[in-house]
This record gives sequence, C-alpha cells and structure tokens, in this order.
Amino acid sequence: MKRVLIINGANLNLLGTREVKIYGDRTFEDYLLDLREKYPHFDIHYFQSNLEGEVVNALQTGANYDAIVLNAGGYAHTSVVIRDAVAAISHFPVIEVHISNIMQRETFRHSSLLSAVCAGTIFGFGLLSYELAMKAIESWD
Amino acid sequence: MKRVLIINGANLNLLGTREVKIYGDRTFEDYLLDLREKYPHFDIHYFQSNLEGEVVNALQTGANYDAIVLNAGGYAHTSVVIRDAVAAISHFPVIEVHISNIMQRETFRHSSLLSAVCAGTIFGFGLLSYELAMKAIESWD
Amino acid sequence: MKRVLIINGANLNLLGTREVKIYGDRTFEDYLLDLREKYPHFDIHYFQSNLEGEVVNALQTGANYDAIVLNAGGYAHTSVVIRDAVAAISHFPVIEVHISNIMQRETFRHSSLLSAVCAGTIFGFGLLSYELAMKAIESWD
Amino acid sequence: MKRVLIINGANLNLLGTREVKIYGDRTFEDYLLDLREKYPHFDIHYFQSNLEGEVVNALQTGANYDAIVLNAGGYAHTSVVIRDAVAAISHFPVIEVHISNIMQRETFRHSSLLSAVCAGTIFGFGLLSYELAMKAIESWD
Amino acid sequence: MKRVLIINGANLNLLGTREVKIYGDRTFEDYLLDLREKYPHFDIHYFQSNLEGEVVNALQTGANYDAIVLNAGGYAHTSVVIRDAVAAISHFPVIEVHISNIMQRETFRHSSLLSAVCAGTIFGFGLLSYELAMKAIESWD
Amino acid sequence: MKRVLIINGANLNLLGTREVKIYGDRTFEDYLLDLREKYPHFDIHYFQSNLEGEVVNALQTGANYDAIVLNAGGYAHTSVVIRDAVAAISHFPVIEVHISNIMQRETFRHSSLLSAVCAGTIFGFGLLSYELAMKAIESWD
Amino acid sequence: MKRVLIINGANLNLLGTREVKIYGDRTFEDYLLDLREKYPHFDIHYFQSNLEGEVVNALQTGANYDAIVLNAGGYAHTSVVIRDAVAAISHFPVIEVHISNIMQRETFRHSSLLSAVCAGTIFGFGLLSYELAMKAIESWD
Amino acid sequence: MKRVLIINGANLNLLGTREVKIYGDRTFEDYLLDLREKYPHFDIHYFQSNLEGEVVNALQTGANYDAIVLNAGGYAHTSVVIRDAVAAISHFPVIEVHISNIMQRETFRHSSLLSAVCAGTIFGFGLLSYELAMKAIESWD
Amino acid sequence: MKRVLIINGANLNLLGTREVKIYGDRTFEDYLLDLREKYPHFDIHYFQSNLEGEVVNALQTGANYDAIVLNAGGYAHTSVVIRDAVAAISHFPVIEVHISNIMQRETFRHSSLLSAVCAGTIFGFGLLSYELAMKAIESWD
Amino acid sequence: MKRVLIINGANLNLLGTREVKIYGDRTFEDYLLDLREKYPHFDIHYFQSNLEGEVVNALQTGANYDAIVLNAGGYAHTSVVIRDAVAAISHFPVIEVHISNIMQRETFRHSSLLSAVCAGTIFGFGLLSYELAMKAIESWD
Amino acid sequence: MKRVLIINGANLNLLGTREVKIYGDRTFEDYLLDLREKYPHFDIHYFQSNLEGEVVNALQTGANYDAIVLNAGGYAHTSVVIRDAVAAISHFPVIEVHISNIMQRETFRHSSLLSAVCAGTIFGFGLLSYELAMKAIESWD
Amino acid sequence: MKRVLIINGANLNLLGTREVKIYGDRTFEDYLLDLREKYPHFDIHYFQSNLEGEVVNALQTGANYDAIVLNAGGYAHTSVVIRDAVAAISHFPVIEVHISNIMQRETFRHSSLLSAVCAGTIFGFGLLSYELAMKAIESWD
Repeated sequence: MKRVLIINGANLNLLGTREVKIYGDRTFEDYLLDLREKYPHFDIHYFQSNLEGEVVNALQTGANYDAIVLNAGGYAHTSVVIRDAVAAISHFPVIEVHISNIMQRETFRHSSLLSAVCAGTIFGFGLLSYELAMKAIESWD
Repeated sequence: MKRVLIINGANLNLLGTREVKIYGDRTFEDYLLDLREKYPHFDIHYFQSNLEGEVVNALQTGANYDAIVLNAGGYAHTSVVIRDAVAAISHFPVIEVHISNIMQRETFRHSSLLSAVCAGTIFGFGLLSYELAMKAIESWD
Repeated sequence: MKRVLIINGANLNLLGTREVKIYGDRTFEDYLLDLREKYPHFDIHYFQSNLEGEVVNALQTGANYDAIVLNAGGYAHTSVVIRDAVAAISHFPVIEVHISNIMQRETFRHSSLLSAVCAGTIFGFGLLSYELAMKAIESWD
Repeated sequence: MKRVLIINGANLNLLGTREVKIYGDRTFEDYLLDLREKYPHFDIHYFQSNLEGEVVNALQTGANYDAIVLNAGGYAHTSVVIRDAVAAISHFPVIEVHISNIMQRETFRHSSLLSAVCAGTIFGFGLLSYELAMKAIESWD
Repeated sequence: MKRVLIINGANLNLLGTREVKIYGDRTFEDYLLDLREKYPHFDIHYFQSNLEGEVVNALQTGANYDAIVLNAGGYAHTSVVIRDAVAAISHFPVIEVHISNIMQRETFRHSSLLSAVCAGTIFGFGLLSYELAMKAIESWD
Repeated sequence: MKRVLIINGANLNLLGTREVKIYGDRTFEDYLLDLREKYPHFDIHYFQSNLEGEVVNALQTGANYDAIVLNAGGYAHTSVVIRDAVAAISHFPVIEVHISNIMQRETFRHSSLLSAVCAGTIFGFGLLSYELAMKAIESWD
Repeated sequence: MKRVLIINGANLNLLGTREVKIYGDRTFEDYLLDLREKYPHFDIHYFQSNLEGEVVNALQTGANYDAIVLNAGGYAHTSVVIRDAVAAISHFPVIEVHISNIMQRETFRHSSLLSAVCAGTIFGFGLLSYELAMKAIESWD
Repeated sequence: MKRVLIINGANLNLLGTREVKIYGDRTFEDYLLDLREKYPHFDIHYFQSNLEGEVVNALQTGANYDAIVLNAGGYAHTSVVIRDAVAAISHFPVIEVHISNIMQRETFRHSSLLSAVCAGTIFGFGLLSYELAMKAIESWD
Repeated sequence: MKRVLIINGANLNLLGTREVKIYGDRTFEDYLLDLREKYPHFDIHYFQSNLEGEVVNALQTGANYDAIVLNAGGYAHTSVVIRDAVAAISHFPVIEVHISNIMQRETFRHSSLLSAVCAGTIFGFGLLSYELAMKAIESWD
Repeated sequence: MKRVLIINGANLNLLGTREVKIYGDRTFEDYLLDLREKYPHFDIHYFQSNLEGEVVNALQTGANYDAIVLNAGGYAHTSVVIRDAVAAISHFPVIEVHISNIMQRETFRHSSLLSAVCAGTIFGFGLLSYELAMKAIESWD
Repeated sequence: MKRVLIINGANLNLLGTREVKIYGDRTFEDYLLDLREKYPHFDIHYFQSNLEGEVVNALQTGANYDAIVLNAGGYAHTSVVIRDAVAAISHFPVIEVHISNIMQRETFRHSSLLSAVCAGTIFGFGLLSYELAMKAIESWD
Repeated sequence: MKRVLIINGANLNLLGTREVKIYGDRTFEDYLLDLREKYPHFDIHYFQSNLEGEVVNALQTGANYDAIVLNAGGYAHTSVVIRDAVAAISHFPVIEVHISNIMQRETFRHSSLLSAVCAGTIFGFGLLSYELAMKAIESWD
C-alpha cells in the first residue's frame, strides 16, 4: 500500500467557497473522499497551511511517504525555501500540481520556482490535476 | 455601526520604538485610541502579525467586516498569497495603506503586488494614512 | 482659511461625459460644488489644462496656496517637467490623486514620476480621492 | 457628405521644406488640395500643432466628425495623454498614419502608444498614407 | 495590366470558419472575388501556406510580379527567413498587411520582423487592409 | 468510442534511438502499442512531423477528434503559428505534453507559447506524460 | 556679428529663486547681462518656455541664427518632438547644455534624447555651461 | 562576556542529514558544541525556524545581544520583511553568513536582500563561515 | 575517403543572384565545383531547403557522413528544432558556418542558437567559410 | 600660473593618423602647441597611455595640479578603476572630454562611468573640446 | 609555516590617504605589520598594482603559495581575465575580500565576477576582512 | 612572403599547463613550431601579454603585417579599447579566434566586442582555430 501526502499551500482552504469561477465549487475535503475511493490501495494523507514555513515543515517530515503531491498555491511563484525543501528530498518523487492554467493568468504566475526540482508538473485540469498525479504515482510502480 | 478590521503586517509592531525618522515616534496602539475617538460610530478591530500566513488567515476570516484596512508592510512587495487572499474577498472593500512614501525609498518598494486587487491605495501621509482610509469607508455609505 | 489649488491635467475636462465606466458620470465642476460645501473653511481654486507646460505654469504660480492637489492625468506617467515643477515647491505640500486604480490598468500607468516628489498619493477611490486629499490637508493643521 | 478631420502633430508643418529625403518635398497644404480633389464628397478639415495639449484639444472637439486621421508625429511614441484623448472617442473611428516607415528608423520610433486605441494603422507610404486612410473611411460606408 | 501576388501565411486558410470574432466570417476566396471585381485592371494571384519555407519559396518566385501583398500571419513575429526573403526583393515593393489590430492583442504580436524590410504596413482594417494595399499599388503608377 | 489524435513535433521521430539519457530508449511506435492496449476504448491516431506548418495542418484537420494531445517539441518555445492553430480549435480540448522536465533544461525551454491556449499541460513524466493526458481525456467524460 | 539664440525649456524660469542648491542663486536674466558683456560681438537672443511645443516652435523659427544653445530642461529626457525639430536644422549648429551634472542625479536624467542630434553637449559647469557654448561658437569661425 | 544570537532560517535544521554534498554532514547542534568550546567567553544563543515571520520575531527580540549572526537560508533572496527587521536594529551589528558559495549556484541566489543592511557578509566557507563571524565580533571589541 | 554533407538553409539558393553586396555574386553550385576540386579526397554532398523541418530531416539522415557543414541562414537565430536535431548527432561533428559577418548586421542576428551544440563556428569569410570548415574536417584526421 | 594635466587614454596616440573621418587629421602633439599658445598663463602637462592602470597611476599622482582634463577614450565606458581614481581626487576638479559625439556612435559608448564623478563633461566638439575645458578652468578662478 | 600572498588591485595603494570615510585612515603597509604580528606562523607576501594584467601575472606566479587573499578593487566588477586567472588555480584556495560593504554602494559594485571562482568571499568588515581570511586559511589546516 | 602577427591576450601563456580539459595540453610555443612548419611561406610573429593596453600597443604597431590573428582571451568580452585598436586598422585584415567554443561556456563569454570589427571569426576548434585563420589568409591571396 502506497503512502501519499497531498500538501496544499496558501488559500487552497478556500476551495469551493470563493472564486468558484477559477477554482470550481467543490471543497477539497469533499474531493478527497472521491480520490480515496478511486485509489483505495493508496493511503492518502492531507495537509494544508497558509504559512510558507509550515509547508516547509510538512515537506521535511515526509520521510515515511512514497510520494508527495504539492500544490503550493501562490508560494510556487515566490518561495525559494519551499524549493529548497523539495530539493532536499531524494528518496521519493514530489509532483507539482496547479488547479488553474497558470499560463492564462497574470504574468507573475507564469513561472514556478518549484518545477525544476519536482519530478513532473501538471496544471490546468482543475481538481483532476491531483488525480493525474495519483495516476503517475501508480504507474511508477 | 460599521465593523472595520485593520491588519498590520511585518515589523509594524515596532512603530514608535525604532526607525522613528521614517515611521514616527508613536506606537500604533496609542494611535488606535485617537482613531477610535475620531470614529466612535465605527467598531474598529486590530490585528498585527509578522507572519505572512497569519495575515492570510486574518484576511480569510474577514467575513463579518464592512471593510479591511491593510498595511502589509514589506509583504506588499513580495506576497502573491496575500494578494490571492485579498482577491478572494468580494463582499466588502480592502484599502491598502502605507505610512511612508514608498516611492521615495528603495526601488524594490516602488511596486506593490496588492494595489491591483485593493479598492484604493493611500501612502505617504504617515499614520494619517489610516484615518484617510476610515474617511473613505465612511464616505462609501 | 486655507487656500487650496486643485490642478487637473489632460483629458480631465471630459469627466462625466466620456468613458463613464472608468471615471464616473459626474463633471468635475459639479463635484466641485459638493467639495466646497463640505469644506466651507477652505478657499478652493481650480485649474485644468490639457497642456503639460500650462500645468507647470500653474504649479509655479502656486506661491499663495497652502496646498496643491494634483491629478496630472496621463502626464503623471511621462512628465519629467511636471515632476521638476513639483520638486521646486518647498513651502507647502503637493498631494497626488488619481480617480481610477492605476494599478488595474495598462502597464505604462503603473508607475508615476510624480509620487516620489509629492507628499502623499491617493488613488482608486473615484472622485472621493480629491476629498481624501482635502481631509489630509485639514488634518495637517 | 462625410466630415473628416486630419490632425498633424509636431514638426509636420515643416513638410516639404526640411528633411525632404525622409518626408518628401511637398507641403501638406499643397497635398491637401489634391486630396480634396480626389475625395470631393468628403468635407476635409485640417489642424496642425506642435503642442501636445493642442492635439488633445483638437481630438476632444471632434464630436461633429465622421472620422479622424491622426499623424501625431513624434508624440506617437511618448504621449499617454493623446492616447487617452483617442480612447475617449467612441462614436467614430480614428486612423493612425505615419509618412515614413517608422520601423526603419531609430528604435524609440518602433512602438506607438496610439496604435492600440486607433481603429487601424498605416505607415511607410509617404503622403499616400493619408489617402489610404481616406479610402478606408470611404469603404466603411 | 499590373500583376499582383497576395501571399497569406499560416492559419489564414481558416478565415471565415474559425475565430470569426477576431477575423470576420468571410473566407478569403470569397473576398478575393470582390477584390478582383474592384480591381479588374489588376492580375491578382493568390498563394497560401502554413509552412514558413513555402512562404519563402513563394516570395523567391515573385520575379514576374509588380507588387506583393504579404500577410505572414503569426510568422510575422518570429520569422527571420521570411524577412530575408523580402529583403532580397529589390525590383518591386512588398506591402505588409494584417487583418486584426496586432497592437490590441498579446505582447508578442506587437512587433513584426517584416515591417522594416517592407515598403509600408497596414493593419487593423479587417479584410479591407488588402484593398488598401491594392489602392497603394494603384497609386504608385 | 473517443477519437484522440496524438501530434508529435520535430525530432520526436528520434525517440528511442538518440539522446536516450533525456528521452528514454523506447520508440514512440512501440510505446503506442502499450497505450492502445491500455486505452482499448479509445481510437488513437498518430501524426509526427518535423515541419512546423505540417503540425499546423494536422491541427486544422482535427475536426473529427474528441481531443488532441500535442507534444510540439522545440516548436513549443518559438511557434506563434502553432499557437494560433490551437487557439482556433474550440470544440474539443488540446492537451500539451512534454517528455522531459523542460524547467530543468536550457532557459529558452522554460516558457511555452502553447500552454496559455491549451486546456492543460503535463511535463516531466517521460512517456507516461502521454498516458496521463489520456487519463485526463477519459475523466472528462 | 554672430546671431545666437539661447532656448531654455521648462522650469528654467525659476533659476535663482528655487532649488538654489542645485541650480545656483542667480536669475538667468541677470546672467544674460554678463554673457552679453563678455561676448559683445554676439547678438544674443533669449527664449524660455515651459511648453514643449513652444520650444519646437522656437527651434523652427531659428532660420536667421548662426547657432542655437539649447537647454531643454526636463524635456531633454522625454521629448522626441524637440529632437525632431533639432534634427530638421541643417544650416547651423545646435549645442546642448545642462547646468547641473545630469549623471549625478536620478537615473531617468542620465540619457538625453537630444545629444545625438546636437553638434556637441556640455553639462555640469553651472551657468558657465552657456559660456562654454558661446566659446565653441566663437571658435568655429 | 559577549552575548551572541545565531539565527538560522529555513531548511537549516536539515544540516548534516540531507544534501550533504553541498552543506556537509554535520548537524548544526553538533557544530555548536565546537563553536562554544572555541569561544568560551561568548554566551552563544541559537534559534532556528522555517517560518519567515518567526525569524523576524527573533530579530525583534534581539535587544539584549551584542551581535547577531544571521543565516536566513533561502529567505535571504526574497524577504523584504527580514531586511526591514535587520534595518530596524541599530545598537549592535548583524552579520550575514551563508554556508555554500551562493555565487556558484542558481542565478536567483546570487543577490541577497540582506547584505546592504548587514554590517558585513561571509559566504562559501562551509560551517567555518559562522566561526569567522565570531572572530569578527571578537575583533570589534 | 571522407563523406561530408553541406546543408544550406533558407534563402541560400539565392546566392549569386540577389543581395550580391552582402553575399557575393557566385552561385553556390558554381562554388561547389571549386570546393570539390580542392578537396578531391572528400565525397561532398549538398542539400538546400527553405523549410526548417527539411533541414531537420536532412540532419537526421546524416548517419552515413563523417561530418556536416551547416549554414542554417536565418534559422540559426530562431530555430530550437534545428538545434535539437544537431544536438542529437553524437558520432561525428557538425560545423556551423555563415558567409557574412553576422556581428556587423542587425542585432537579432548576433546570437545563434546553434553555436553551443556545434563543434565549432566560422563566420565572416564569405564563401571561404565553407572551405575553412573542410580544412578543419581534414585536420581532424 | 595654473598647472593643468591632460590625460589621454587608449588609442588617442593614433590621433591624426587613423580614422581621420571621426577624429580629424591632426596629431595631439601638434594641437598641444596651439593650446599652449592660447593659454600661455597655464602650465599644461600631457600624459597618454594605452594601459588602464597607467591612467590610474597618472590620476593618483595628480596632487600638484590645479585641474585634470581627462579623455579616457574607450575606458570611459568600462573602467570602474579609473572612476575610483577620479573619485579619490577631492582637492581640484577633473573634467571629462570626448572628441567625437559619443551619442551618435555605438550603444555601448552612450554611457560613461566617469561623468558622475567628474565636475563636468564636454563632448562632440572635436579637439575644441579640450579648449573648452581650459576655458572652464580659467573661469573657475 | 604557511605561505600566503595578499594581492591588492587598483587604487588600494591610496588606503589611509584618500576617501577615509569609506576605507578608513590606515595605510595597508601599516596594517600589514599588525597582521604579521597576529599570524607569526604565516609567511605573508604582499603585492599591489593598479594594472589589471599585473594582477593576472601575480596570480599566475602563485604556485608556491598555500593560499591567496585577493582584493581586486574595482576590477572585481569588470575583469574577465582576473577571473580566468583565478579559475586556472587549482592547487590552493583564493579568498575574495572587500573592505567596504559593496552592497551599500553603487549598483555596478553589487556583483563580482570573481566570487564564483573563489573559495569564499568576505566583505564589509573594513581591514578586518583580511584578518578573517587569514583565520579561514588557518582553520583549513 | 606574407608577414602575419599572432596576438594572444590574457592567460593564454598558461596554455598546456593549466585547465588542460578546456584548452588542451600543448603550450602555444610548441604549437607554433608546427604552424610555422605547415606555413613555411609565412613569416609568423608572436606576441602575448596579460595586459590589455599592451595588446592595444601590439595592434597599433601592426603596420608592417599582412594580417593579424587575434585571440584576446577574456578581453574579447569586455575591452572597448582593443575593439577601437582593431577598428583603427584599415590596410589588412584582423581575424578573431578562440580556442574553446565560447557559446558552451558562461553567458558573459557569449558575446565578443571584437567580432563586429574583425574580418571574420573562428571558434571552438582548439588550437586548430589558428591554423584555419592561416588558411584564410593564404586563400585571400
């Protein structure tokens, strides 16, 4: 059984309640039920924080996981320290996801400091982005 | 009675004690007494934090307010996540203030990531900047 | 009694008649009546010109005023000479205002050459921006 | 009968007398005779000024015209206020023309602030550029 | 009788069927009928290709023409080789046209590598842009 | 049964034979067998070309498909015309994939002109990237 | 007897009364007396305006002069039209002067659009800069 | 006896366990024993946090120290608020250190926002960088 | 006997007939006769195309050669895919040549995307550039 | 009697023999005779070197002079150390001169590292530039 | 006994006599006495030159040393050749020092071409910077 | 018999002894023997210096040569004065060579200030680059 940690960064706790036009009208907790049902052979953990340093902490304690799925939200575009924390992980892959198509939004969202240190990146598929990450982890068996 | 939340970001707890040449010699708590006296028909709440994520949290819990006055301090120039948290607020205005004239200081302070998602911006008037924000909220009646 | 000069630069004579979506549907003359009513203890003068050099001239003849409120319009983003004229004023403050939120518009409007030489800057509050400037002048007593 | 206003900006009063290598050896007044002959069903008005603000004024008084043909000269590359004046016109088209091929000249002439707010742009055809603009206005019938 | 070659570059074969909001709802073939009717004294040839190199080939075989009207589509912004092919033509003029106002679209469309080596440029007039080019060729008699 | 077209751009015919360190040692044809086996309910078509314009042609003839999976190779970073061809597709989604992590390679590969007009983007998962795209199409049911 | 025209641009009418630290405490009219005394064999004319277009006008009427000494003030850094007016002068030299050392001031003052079309440039010598220009004109005999 | 505070920012708690190739294989706690032994006449305090705002907090409470040695980790390249917190300290020096040679790493690590407000900077000497900072403090006696 | 492939890109078929001032007045076919005479112990093949993708195809089929001499023409400055095709060649060297001195021409010709993946680069020697490449291949024996 | 040192930097020993079109056909030694004749009350010393460090040395030994006239040639655009040597001089002025109009030449000649630390700058007057510098020194009496 | 070479670049021979506000009032020779006293077990050699190439020469002859301490002065910001000379040294470390805090000075001093090829860098500690370098060499035992 | 001068700039005296991985293991003197043997009909002179100004001197004394082969080393990327010295040579060609492929190295080595003023440029062929230059000179007969 694979252990997977999903980390959501700043403002992703608002999913389903605000800016539904961009992010959809489902809460992540609700979506998580579906995801666990679709991947019953995965042990899926979930962590969300609006604090950059707590995302770093969560990444550092990832030792027991087989993979991390990371949506750092707005921190993806500014955070050298989350990048450093990802780069320090060598025993399992970190996959970067974004719900929206970051290339269709403001210029400062077009580049992610995290992509270069993640195994792969998926964006623009809405919440489905997380599921594609699960699929990738499954395929790496 | 209007409910207003003032949020001060990093280092603004030092007001009145350090760099008095730039920021003046009054503590914000002291100034708050004046402000409440001048706007007795306002219910003014106050929150300060040096942590970016806690500013995000404060913005997210703003649902009961009629307006937020936000001085993000140095985070104004770097924080995509505070910008995202402001952008997620749609039921009442957020006003950006700065005590000093940010255009007379270092180049990296000349642009604010927050201005474009705030209703309006006021800077350079010292602590008076907060009062002008109150005046604006009052006028929006 | 305080003497205040309001200077409006290029195209602001069109207020209330064109681009009402951005600038509102009131003429400035109409608004001026209100402003004078609200600040009866102020002697408010008004000057508008579409010519950069005439704005410079108006600033140079400001010697008898207690304060100037300056909305240079599009010249704010390109005029070194208006900046120089403001910088040459040392006996009373000049306050920069903009009706619209210049940070939500085209990139070339995001920076103002005038901000650094003005006492303070207010933008995004519609015509209310002028009133906030009056409030600031009043508070500086 | 269509009413058309041709506005020429700075230094275009020198046409035919100086820098004939770039701009040709005909005065604009002389050329205007031809143009009126070719478009007898047009009521062609003409205004020239070396002052940026007077070009703005001319654009603002355009209410009675069916179209404006605008050659702002050097102001095309620096004037936000002429751009604003064009953008404020909504009832008829403004066409931008240049006599020379601005892309073959100095780098600072390669971009025009006006193109984005004009209906269309024509450059490099010498004085013929104005006639092509007339042709366009005629075709829009 | 003047021989004119119209060259349309990539995606212009889609005219009239897709993105009608930007490009209009007429096919170019249909428009060509009109154009030939309006300019019966012109021998108008037409070539379209989605391949950059075939546009180069078409330009090289232009020896028998009196003028070329070139809408390189998206290649206008990236193609050094089409520029080189135009620059190699010295016996007759090449006129650059664009249907849409390229200055109102994405930043990467704001500059054309071709303008500096073409005789003149016309953009923003819809399909009428081609007709204005014909008019220019006619006037050069 | 869903009809899917996979388009591979320049140099992707070399897969499995050269630069195996970056791209792996499997030919795409070989991989295609697997993919069809895994997605038997999909009718998967395949097109590869080293010519930019042929990729445009392939995109234009996509009318009968339910989705296109596009790996434009090096053209992703330079081709305005492929971008235009994708943007012209409105009835079904185009998914952008890259085999390698383009953010770990040369700077000029860090930005893709195509991402902003594609539904979503997946990169860095090796050939698995294509399968994740299939998964996405399947999920969109 | 040589006829020389001195043109001073925006804000130079303030000389001697404001910002004396940068520009000195003498009015230009006062200085002009000295200059005429030192160069009695010169017929020195003087024109000052805060309006860009009037500086252009003054340059255009320069036909009767043997030389022009031009201090465009802040316009030196932004005015394409003054540059064009200077470039149109071919029968006598235009010399650019600045009172202050523009390279020791703000970055936007470090480059002058006028230098490339003037015969020579002199800056940083205070009012003496004008006298050096006179000396140059004298030497060109 | 001098009181010195060492502040380590994000990810420096991982020292000795990850990325040993860049940062060495010793934990900081272990190294601290050595440091205290070498500088027995110093009262060395130690604080580490992955949270930007907690680093700010630690700097603000520095009033009782004679010096601070600050390794902000990745925050050195992005944090305006840590810079502000350092700038607010005026009674004792802050020394910036980095373990690795930041100029041999990614471009975004080449500049530090902190250097300009620190007394001095030391980087590239491994853990020895901290000891050199101690030496500097000792020498300032 | 060494087998060498010379690949000429876009517009090089025009050699000797157009722009003789820059490229000389000899056709490449004519020059090829000389080259084969001077290097009789070389089996020299020649391919020219105006299509970027065909240059890629030619490079891919280079397996039987001992060396390739590549003059990509204008594609050298824009083509990521030709760069990729060169980079995929590992068994023999590719030499980049240009006839003209690209550093004396327009800015966009000053950098070549190909140089970094070619063995060496030669430019500015006219057609002699090709011969120097032959000399290099001969010397590598 | 004033002691003046003229320092000429790299390649200025070639004056009068090469590139006469840009620099004129007189040797500097020849010109020096004239200069000394015109300023007999000056004790004019002369130093030329093609070595950057020797120019620095010459500047350092300037203690006995009343002024230095410095034409650093190409070093003006690249030399931080000559700038430092000028900045270290505080007891007498250094005047920067250039023979040609550096603003009409290549872009890399448009800015001088020396201007900001010199008293004033004169360029574009040919050899007369040196004489104007002498005039300035004379006037400073 | 360790042999150490200290190399000082341009203008550092002026230490103690000029710009004492930035660099202090001690000559380097005087400081050297102290340094040798503090590190009696070091054989400290000293070389200073204002000539870039002589600094290169000194670095090349460094074969007999155990370490070099290099303060290249202004050359640190412009000299590729000193960088190359340092990079060519592989048997012992080169330490870069600066007396002043280069990050508090002009922008062109903020980056050093040398840092990336030196073992470590120390700046801002005044002359103490050299001693810290000695300390580092001692610790590397 | 042709007289050729080879000038090697900074650090090229280290050839064969250091950084053999990039530059090879042969001294230039050794290679020179070969070169002279291969080109017995050439009178080959050789000059090397680490001093920029001495390279300028060597170029200035080139009057008796038929050609110069110049490898300025690191100076190629920074030296305006060597460029000026090359530009001053008009009676015979200067050929620029580099041993390594400068486009595969650090970004600051990607552009050479010398290329535009040299006849042609050759880089990336190791020491063979010099021989190719000889070949070019021979061919120019």
